[in-house]
Amino acid sequence: MLEEQKISISVVKRLPRYYRFLEELKNNGINRISSKELSARMGLTASQIRQDFNCFGGFGQQGYGYNVEKLCDEIGEILGLSAKHKTILLGAGNLGRAVANHVFSESKGFTLIGIFDRKESLTGQLIKGIPVRHIDGLYDFCHDNSPTVAIICLPPDATRELCPELIKLGITAIWNFSSYDVSLHCPNIPVENVHIGDSLMTICYKIKEYNEKGKDGE
Amino acid sequence: MLEEQKISISVVKRLPRYYRFLEELKNNGINRISSKELSARMGLTASQIRQDFNCFGGFGQQGYGYNVEKLCDEIGEILGLSAKHKTILLGAGNLGRAVANHVFSESKGFTLIGIFDRKESLTGQLIKGIPVRHIDGLYDFCHDNSPTVAIICLPPDATRELCPELIKLGITAIWNFSSYDVSLHCPNIPVENVHIGDSLMTICYKIKEYNEKGKDGE
Repeated sequence: MLEEQKISISVVKRLPRYYRFLEELKNNGINRISSKELSARMGLTASQIRQDFNCFGGFGQQGYGYNVEKLCDEIGEILGLSAKHKTILLGAGNLGRAVANHVFSESKGFTLIGIFDRKESLTGQLIKGIPVRHIDGLYDFCHDNSPTVAIICLPPDATRELCPELIKLGITAIWNFSSYDVSLHCPNIPVENVHIGDSLMTICYKIKEYNEKGKDGE
Repeated sequence: MLEEQKISISVVKRLPRYYRFLEELKNNGINRISSKELSARMGLTASQIRQDFNCFGGFGQQGYGYNVEKLCDEIGEILGLSAKHKTILLGAGNLGRAVANHVFSESKGFTLIGIFDRKESLTGQLIKGIPVRHIDGLYDFCHDNSPTVAIICLPPDATRELCPELIKLGITAIWNFSSYDVSLHCPNIPVENVHIGDSLMTICYKIKEYNEKGKDGE
């Protein structure tokens, strides 16, 4: 079984990007692609791609290329995208709505079953057909529906308060969009952070570095 | 000058997180902190923190700790956060609005001067006091106002179309929230990607791995 193989972290980190490119090819009706063509599209070297794909058995045939659909499906399987993790979204502001749209449009791995916010004015509003519930109903909802994944689109203070509760309510994985470092207080469960503020500082640094290099070059 | 020093990429990657923690301490009126205390808060080892801070001159005194404000300001300077890059936002949907709020609430490095969308129904709406303009006005706006940074919160197809135009209009850095890999077609300028879809696949993988480990442990 492929799942039993050990795939290195550096390869795993590239898998979502491979999946994204291969899925686009698949959707465009492209059945086969060589590592050379794929490398030109992705900005990686062909040898890097061949090495990566070899890690999980590869599917290339010399001079014939990769079977796009098979490779895409295989990477999807490694990523676990066929799962239907019952998921709740905390925070129905702009960010929460944007993320909910993503979860729906991608429909991979997660099934959004509940949306919560503490703003009463949002209660009852529909996001992709799911009503926003008041956060006070979280306990009962979790007991009745047993979600296992939480998406957090809340300010850091609210996130800090809520995290221990979520764990008690049976949440075993967190997709965290708050600037609060959830994993510090939930070290034992899978956490994936999207720290938009950190990304903002990173592009700021890249610009500074780019401008300084430009000046050096004059 | 500190700017002249070479700081390794791995240290640079941790700087936004250091900045975030130090800024919180500063805002809470904490003046000094030891590497040990900071390590407990951040989930890094004290020796890692000392090593990192030494890279840019450090500011710790044995047995006395770091001057929080000075260290925070210094990291901010390294990141270039005092800049005021004139920035435009492309895409005024939920994600664009969420990102605009971030840029405003952080007010670091960037000054948002224009927001554009192709949906006519959004034209004239105010986001943080800035009116949404129709995308058709982008050319004139850029000629009159000379923005240098673009934040892209558009679908991938719209992003692919728009990128070459942005470069022609004088944009020299892109903060990209679309799933399109901007850097493939703009290889010479600073690009920072926030690929929400890739992050979703990553958390999916982490959950799968976590569940498999759990089963192995039984």
